[in-house]
Amino acid sequence: MTSSANQQKILVAVVGVGLVGSEFISQLLSIPPQVSHFKLVSLTSSSKTLFAGKESPITPNAQWKSKLAESTAPADLKELTTKLTQLVAEKERVALVDNTSSEDVAALYPVWLKAGIHVVTPNKKAFSGEAALFENILAASRESGAKFLNEATVGAGLPVIAPLKELVATGDKIVRIEGVFSGTMSYIFNNFSAGKPEGPSFSSVVAVAREKGYTEPHPADDLNGFDVARKLTILSRLISSAPSATPSTLPSLQSFASVQTASLIPPALEGISTGDEFLKRLPEFDEEFAKLRVEASKENKVLRFVGVVDVANGQVRAGLEKYPVDHPFATSLGGSDNIIMFHTERYSPRPLIVQGAGAGAAVTAMGVLGDLLKLV
Amino acid sequence: MTSSANQQKILVAVVGVGLVGSEFISQLLSIPPQVSHFKLVSLTSSSKTLFAGKESPITPNAQWKSKLAESTAPADLKELTTKLTQLVAEKERVALVDNTSSEDVAALYPVWLKAGIHVVTPNKKAFSGEAALFENILAASRESGAKFLNEATVGAGLPVIAPLKELVATGDKIVRIEGVFSGTMSYIFNNFSAGKPEGPSFSSVVAVAREKGYTEPHPADDLNGFDVARKLTILSRLISSAPSATPSTLPSLQSFASVQTASLIPPALEGISTGDEFLKRLPEFDEEFAKLRVEASKENKVLRFVGVVDVANGQVRAGLEKYPVDHPFATSLGGSDNIIMFHTERYSPRPLIVQGAGAGAAVTAMGVLGDLLKLV
Repeated sequence: MTSSANQQKILVAVVGVGLVGSEFISQLLSIPPQVSHFKLVSLTSSSKTLFAGKESPITPNAQWKSKLAESTAPADLKELTTKLTQLVAEKERVALVDNTSSEDVAALYPVWLKAGIHVVTPNKKAFSGEAALFENILAASRESGAKFLNEATVGAGLPVIAPLKELVATGDKIVRIEGVFSGTMSYIFNNFSAGKPEGPSFSSVVAVAREKGYTEPHPADDLNGFDVARKLTILSRLISSAPSATPSTLPSLQSFASVQTASLIPPALEGISTGDEFLKRLPEFDEEFAKLRVEASKENKVLRFVGVVDVANGQVRAGLEKYPVDHPFATSLGGSDNIIMFHTERYSPRPLIVQGAGAGAAVTAMGVLGDLLKLV
Repeated sequence: MTSSANQQKILVAVVGVGLVGSEFISQLLSIPPQVSHFKLVSLTSSSKTLFAGKESPITPNAQWKSKLAESTAPADLKELTTKLTQLVAEKERVALVDNTSSEDVAALYPVWLKAGIHVVTPNKKAFSGEAALFENILAASRESGAKFLNEATVGAGLPVIAPLKELVATGDKIVRIEGVFSGTMSYIFNNFSAGKPEGPSFSSVVAVAREKGYTEPHPADDLNGFDVARKLTILSRLISSAPSATPSTLPSLQSFASVQTASLIPPALEGISTGDEFLKRLPEFDEEFAKLRVEASKENKVLRFVGVVDVANGQVRAGLEKYPVDHPFATSLGGSDNIIMFHTERYSPRPLIVQGAGAGAAVTAMGVLGDLLKLV
């Protein structure tokens, strides 16, 4: 009998069974049961809940999709909370995995944490939303000892949050975090700005990115920079809230809207309601973007849409910046990769760099499952 | 009262108080006691042991160096083992941190693990040495549930071992790990081979590296490639021994000596006993190395001393290879950085990349303390 088989298994309830949710369930169930530390006890879609319970958990061969479809119980997070709280009372270790991007689900984290239920999620809403919610999450976790883990909120499966926590917890001083945090923005500018004055038009690159599924249905939802602002908020709060940190020089962010974000949406195109209409009008602004590319090229630079948490200067900002053609953001970056540089007291003058795919169901689900494994 | 204060603290015994050991102790003691999860109960140098015990642990203001110097107890790992085993019997959580590079200390890991003592270390000897020792470590850890953590054995504080474990545990398939794993080799070839046919002589670059303290006192101890072979052995065994892994196609390594390692020591200089004598004779071979550089340059490539764990082709090798001038090993690498690429089923066609300083006391100690934090 191995120690893993002896150890108490963690009971897992999954909320959200879309692309990331399905892939997560598939990865979780592919761990051979004899070495798995988990029992999958519940699934909740937007319409239904399946509560299998700890005695008859959902197994690899269980055809979970059809079972969930057959369930007669409506999606009811209040009822789910009651059942999971009961399991905690029975001395079980319980984790809720939120694979949605819902604000309503995020609003429940403090309730779950207070009840002793661990929360693991790729959902950015809670950690980048209102400061009060974030503080309630911290307080609830401190109170009960239940953990909240959110590696997959920044860079999907890339090691970003865990290494940052480790840097801070071991006493390193973060000077600046700087990166390309959006796979969409990465793809767009890797293709639009390669160091030469000429190249494809901005609108054509955005159109191709949309065809390939790299953008949201409405490209303005990427070009507004909000996704990057949310990720920066998460990193910035993580630095500021670390228990051993010296008083942070970072601004206290009321929400991701407090990040200085330079949107790429031309003001004249603000508020256009459909992606198609937006793309039809975008060529009117190709000349403006082309001018920026020429200017960058004159300085032997490329354009990249980056996020910066500048601890030294107390600034959190997202926007288009210029980088020399021999900078890793120009030379090493490609495809729709994320790249993140940690400039710290110890990693100086050369930063710690992490790079790779920062979006997609498989790597996002991996980031979530990786967090769950940290609870073992 | 926070949960961290409520939680049982981990009692830490440190063996090895040299450069890395001292830095580790300093980082550990810099965590404010009210949030620290640890109590430092013992220190062992090459000559002495200080056993403070759980009631009067070593505190930040304790002047540990002078206390250890004043200790009258000789270094006695057997006695230490008895005392730590007693603490485990008292239901304490105990971790031993081996900051030496000693084979004798490494040989004791199975004893400690079997006794329920967690082992955390940057010492490569155990995990890259005889297969029997490695298997005893695995078995002892499985038996007692005590963990062995060794993030700092590869890339120092860089996230390498933990992400690799996560990739494997979540069901990703490792295709190939490829990297510059030696800070010394990185420095030497970043300076020797920058893509041009001409450049400084090989012996002059090695001499400068030695002056700067980047090489061992005897440069042959770096140029033999053993350090890289050891790191590859650790990664290869980690992949092969993962519980959920499909039967590995990797060769079973009897020790790091089983890695196909192409040493850079000219055969005529094998066995020269002093570093000074070695450096005096090295210029005889400058022409050979210069020829390699010219050949690489003709192909528009640079030379890098890399390590490769090629799972797809069942091969583990270390040696000099050529990379295109626009490859990250050429463009992104600098200083004495490590760079590691993980090519996997999920990270394909573009790999997951980690880069940064892979040696030095501060970042190595951080890797060790980071592991200790994972036990919390």
